[in-house]
Amino acid sequence: MTELADLGVTGLAVMGANLARNAARKGLRVALHNRTDEKTDRLVAEHGGEGDFRPSHSVADFVASLAVPRVVIIMVKAGKPVDGVIEELAEHMQPGDIIVDGGNSLFEDTRRRAATLAERQLHFVGMGISGGEEGALEGPSMMPGGSKEAWDRIAPMVTRMAVSVDGTPCCAYMGPDGAGHYVKMVHNGIEYADMQLITEAYDLLRTVYGRSAAEIGEIFAGWKSGDLDSYLIEITAAVLAKKDPATGNALVDMIVDEAEQKGTGRWTAQSALELGVPITAITEAVFARALSGRPAQRRAAEKALGGLRIEPRQAGQAEIDKIRDALYASKIIAYAQGFEQLAVASRQYDWNLNPGLIATIWRGGCIIRARFLDRIREGYDSHPDAPSLLLQDYFRDAVLKAEQAWRDVVVLAVQNGVAVPAFASSLAYYDGVRRARGPANLLQGLRDYFGAHTYRRTDREGSYHIRWSQDGTEIKG
Amino acid sequence: MTELADLGVTGLAVMGANLARNAARKGLRVALHNRTDEKTDRLVAEHGGEGDFRPSHSVADFVASLAVPRVVIIMVKAGKPVDGVIEELAEHMQPGDIIVDGGNSLFEDTRRRAATLAERQLHFVGMGISGGEEGALEGPSMMPGGSKEAWDRIAPMVTRMAVSVDGTPCCAYMGPDGAGHYVKMVHNGIEYADMQLITEAYDLLRTVYGRSAAEIGEIFAGWKSGDLDSYLIEITAAVLAKKDPATGNALVDMIVDEAEQKGTGRWTAQSALELGVPITAITEAVFARALSGRPAQRRAAEKALGGLRIEPRQAGQAEIDKIRDALYASKIIAYAQGFEQLAVASRQYDWNLNPGLIATIWRGGCIIRARFLDRIREGYDSHPDAPSLLLQDYFRDAVLKAEQAWRDVVVLAVQNGVAVPAFASSLAYYDGVRRARGPANLLQGLRDYFGAHTYRRTDREGSYHIRWSQDGTEIKG
Repeated sequence: MTELADLGVTGLAVMGANLARNAARKGLRVALHNRTDEKTDRLVAEHGGEGDFRPSHSVADFVASLAVPRVVIIMVKAGKPVDGVIEELAEHMQPGDIIVDGGNSLFEDTRRRAATLAERQLHFVGMGISGGEEGALEGPSMMPGGSKEAWDRIAPMVTRMAVSVDGTPCCAYMGPDGAGHYVKMVHNGIEYADMQLITEAYDLLRTVYGRSAAEIGEIFAGWKSGDLDSYLIEITAAVLAKKDPATGNALVDMIVDEAEQKGTGRWTAQSALELGVPITAITEAVFARALSGRPAQRRAAEKALGGLRIEPRQAGQAEIDKIRDALYASKIIAYAQGFEQLAVASRQYDWNLNPGLIATIWRGGCIIRARFLDRIREGYDSHPDAPSLLLQDYFRDAVLKAEQAWRDVVVLAVQNGVAVPAFASSLAYYDGVRRARGPANLLQGLRDYFGAHTYRRTDREGSYHIRWSQDGTEIKG
Repeated sequence: MTELADLGVTGLAVMGANLARNAARKGLRVALHNRTDEKTDRLVAEHGGEGDFRPSHSVADFVASLAVPRVVIIMVKAGKPVDGVIEELAEHMQPGDIIVDGGNSLFEDTRRRAATLAERQLHFVGMGISGGEEGALEGPSMMPGGSKEAWDRIAPMVTRMAVSVDGTPCCAYMGPDGAGHYVKMVHNGIEYADMQLITEAYDLLRTVYGRSAAEIGEIFAGWKSGDLDSYLIEITAAVLAKKDPATGNALVDMIVDEAEQKGTGRWTAQSALELGVPITAITEAVFARALSGRPAQRRAAEKALGGLRIEPRQAGQAEIDKIRDALYASKIIAYAQGFEQLAVASRQYDWNLNPGLIATIWRGGCIIRARFLDRIREGYDSHPDAPSLLLQDYFRDAVLKAEQAWRDVVVLAVQNGVAVPAFASSLAYYDGVRRARGPANLLQGLRDYFGAHTYRRTDREGSYHIRWSQDGTEIKG
């Protein structure tokens, strides 16, 4: 029986193919399957020498080529295709076998699939994988959730495929049913915010301070050695430095300004709305992409309203440092919001998520990997129940230190007509959260007036209502 | 048969009871039913003299008391209760009968219910009703959608119950299946934004300019005679002027600052995310309520980060006018976003919504009724396909006129540490939409780098990818 494969991968587009190669390179016997045979055969032809691949041209053969309990990782497009593949696999599998969904599935789908497969005595693991093509091959960050029993069995194999930081693999069990995909979803939401913040910093340097793409690339390269040190800052420097092979211009200046999105950012915001967690930075980032994707409207609006009217000015190191500080402070808010969403979801769905562990496995392999995550890990390790990242000493001090620069940068943007929705909404969140008494008392007064929704009082218990359109007296609501 | 009732109302909490009284006052014979008889009997005891009521103590009797085709308006809490009532009614009704859901149901539920009932040859009308208790009694704004055939039959009765403005009833058929509830949902979303903007204006006057609640009430009373003239401005003035009967303080100063919400604002934002429409003002308003509802966190954050540090200063008329202008400009953005969401949803769900008609029926009865809506109606009447409110002459000019004041107010808030998430995000949207070329080219460059998501070029067609980690050449994607 040693001839049978250790695990199978079905769905051999770039991510799946690279994950299969990753497994084979780590010494695992890897069964291969794809809906069309061409991808399977090409993988074996091009990379067959990297390890022990077992290609199959039918689902039946594929499943039969696996050692028991069978382990299959599905790497197909999220949504209906996943259900289709699961159905086909389940027909050929036996009780105790393990299906792993390595795609970006919506956590609610994962919850549903886990429940359905459990009825058929099949184990289901929903595993978020981050790191893009290169990560899948060289070692991604992996966020498995679902059947704990199944995870314990496959952990030794799968964990080997993840990258390690300081000897710790960036892969750990997150929690039951949809926990893994939820954590990956919020990872992507934070990634949206991170990228939007970077884009706003770039925009200010470009439009207000008149720097070229190459010059801004150098500024970002400089930020790599500070608190902002992260994969996204690093590749921003690389992208901005890149010359267009065709024209010799900066590549970024030749790229169309319409951002696309696949769904995880939107899902993060929708879930936060459902849970009542204010994740303003992530949501503004999702909306900024949506707005960028409406070019006809933007062109018409520029014509009707006028576009930027800026005389680019000189910026010294002090001005550039301020933008860096604003980016850092806003980033702290985005992460604080994301981790708060994880905490609330954990309570809502009974996942018992461990925020320190999540920070640990995001330190390498994934798109938002950053020095920063070590600080988050340390913070949660010492205060596992910290109500907000913003209240941890390190981040509190960092935000307070950056606060004035942050305000100055938002003011600069507002005065010059440059949109910084994520900078500004992060700052508004900060100013909102640090008010023990905010202005929503007026909202409650209005709601009582038009809808008799009642209000609470600061000086005694209970709900009250004013008989606004009658005698104006207060009654118990 | 003339003895049978013209229509029935089931669910006699305040909204249902008032709607039934409204119908009876208009000369309709109104059958009454409630899950518990006490509410039915009390309504007849207290208001039986207002018209021809026909109370029933069972669903069978209730349905039997109605003229054919039977018309029942359901006024119960959105969600499962509606399904329960529909099921009971359907058991006793006959093909051709008409069920109207007058609650705040999620439009997707309404779509589902319409389809299910159609199979049983029952007509279903999902009808949004706005105006609160008083509106339900005196004449609300009504947004019916669903079976057109059924609507045509009941329109003469139901339309009589709506308020009229300049002789036009604030009630019109919106479109098939969930169209009516969708329009009502976006109405409520806009209401969230409107109220948040008012709250931010109040907060600035209170904290930065040190005005008392009563003084701010007078300022709002003054705004009633200008462009902002609306029900919400009017009741803001009334709420701020109100003295607490118990202490003699301003009532608003005694109200707890935690805003509640029931779901329609959240649904509006979730649907906009689904459709890819950037409705930033509404969403920030929903999140602001969520943040207000986390008092423990706000108290901890104020302690850790420090709260407001403002020396209130004097404000002259010029400063107050600026806040008014910022409120007005932000409000235009919120409405522009809401109407854009309606347009995109209309295409998505094949509803053929008429924006001018929607503005028309929102002019009276509902919570967001305002002089403003006449301008929107005129704009859409002359340009039914206007891509954005912001591009209509009237609103374009209004925003351009207010623009500098708007910037000044956001700067004032940012410099003083007062959160104005809806003012700021509206302005960021404005600055984002009026850029024919924005900065999302960098986003696309980053996405291509880490995920091989490809980018488009400004100088030729097609999708491209840079082999970033190989030879750096560009290939067709």
